[in-house]
Amino acid sequence: MSGSLTVVGTGPGKAELMTPATRAVLDRASDLVGYGPYLDRIPATRADQQRHASDNRVELDRARHALSLAAAGRQVVVVSGGDPGVFAMASAVFEAVEHGDPAWRTLDIRVEPGVTAMLAAAAEAGAPLGGDFCAISLSDNLKNWSTIERRLNAAAEADFVIALYNPASKARPHQLGMALDLLRQVKSGTTPVLFVRAAGTAETKVVAATLATADPSVADMRTLVIVGASTTRTVGRWVYTPRSERLT
Amino acid sequence: MSGSLTVVGTGPGKAELMTPATRAVLDRASDLVGYGPYLDRIPATRADQQRHASDNRVELDRARHALSLAAAGRQVVVVSGGDPGVFAMASAVFEAVEHGDPAWRTLDIRVEPGVTAMLAAAAEAGAPLGGDFCAISLSDNLKNWSTIERRLNAAAEADFVIALYNPASKARPHQLGMALDLLRQVKSGTTPVLFVRAAGTAETKVVAATLATADPSVADMRTLVIVGASTTRTVGRWVYTPRSERLT
Repeated sequence: MSGSLTVVGTGPGKAELMTPATRAVLDRASDLVGYGPYLDRIPATRADQQRHASDNRVELDRARHALSLAAAGRQVVVVSGGDPGVFAMASAVFEAVEHGDPAWRTLDIRVEPGVTAMLAAAAEAGAPLGGDFCAISLSDNLKNWSTIERRLNAAAEADFVIALYNPASKARPHQLGMALDLLRQVKSGTTPVLFVRAAGTAETKVVAATLATADPSVADMRTLVIVGASTTRTVGRWVYTPRSERLT
Repeated sequence: MSGSLTVVGTGPGKAELMTPATRAVLDRASDLVGYGPYLDRIPATRADQQRHASDNRVELDRARHALSLAAAGRQVVVVSGGDPGVFAMASAVFEAVEHGDPAWRTLDIRVEPGVTAMLAAAAEAGAPLGGDFCAISLSDNLKNWSTIERRLNAAAEADFVIALYNPASKARPHQLGMALDLLRQVKSGTTPVLFVRAAGTAETKVVAATLATADPSVADMRTLVIVGASTTRTVGRWVYTPRSERLT
């Protein structure tokens, strides 16, 4: 049997948010490759299944390892959190293919979609992504901060709802404050801002603020931040963005 | 027992892409409310479950009907395709709450996240959403075309990957061509463009083009269009956006 590689996402955390398609792929795998905490979300199903856990900062090494296993005939699944195509492992796998062994291009490589963090975070709070929106990772490990600023500015000027992935970490405590300050120069202080921690898990916590009052220290590695558009509204305990810009 | 209302998404189409959490909510419902073709995706589980199918253009009426049923003590599920918070019913429900019977604000209203079309479309093609991206609905039924143009321009100038929902319909055959022409004024003609029809179903079809060659007539109501960033690359039969802007 020839090898294969499928990149999957566990969803945001709860087992009930992992798709049956992903579950089926995991059940068929001979080898699971991924960041340790994501692998830990997957119950052991077969004694002969090999697990290859690695650190979070070595995406390309992990991708190459997974491709080598598939080239050797294994049925490999690379495990991301959320959706594997959003700030996750699918991109690293194709990058490794492009710059790696030409034989890897002939492998059976697939991607299974999943529920990405921003969708789970939005659902916890109502429907803040109800209009046009964008997703920006605030991590400048892989891109210049000037690029992030340019995108924040464009998103604010064109009145997108903005979902911020990777808003803060121990190594990057200041980016979110800088991002909010930048957005305050363009957007109204009354704009709803949501800090959703551990969306789609049993420990979910939502903090609703406004752009004027938002405290960046509320966010950590497990937080997704959503900054509303000019049309985004608070009704009772919910925040939503109307489908129509003509409503208000 | 007091009433409740949960807004769910079926995912892009295949049953295997509907989350178990959504499945469980559907199993508990006394009443399902939604656009007919989405309700048709859900196998009948209980003889006592009421189905309320409606046309696609009456989101607010449908939301009010669902809220009335919940206020009368029913366990109501409003069914969208994809994710209910992305160009779908969750926003309409909160809009109906805001402008409707004040008693509706005390109802138990929840949203269950799902796999939205753009994630399934991206997975079919590789990892085109691997960097910062935005989602824009090209439908001008509920917003001005000038707003759409402003967002397309901003997304192109700031080099987001762009996912276009609702690119075309019989009533709106010309918008996608206008959008692509606008993007051509800013972005390179070599930018990868993907037309993914019926992503996440058994009938999926991917057409890969470039911005210079993209033919808008390829798209219909069931197509999701993804326009790459400057860093988006084609490798073999896949298209991906590197996580790093420093790669190329």
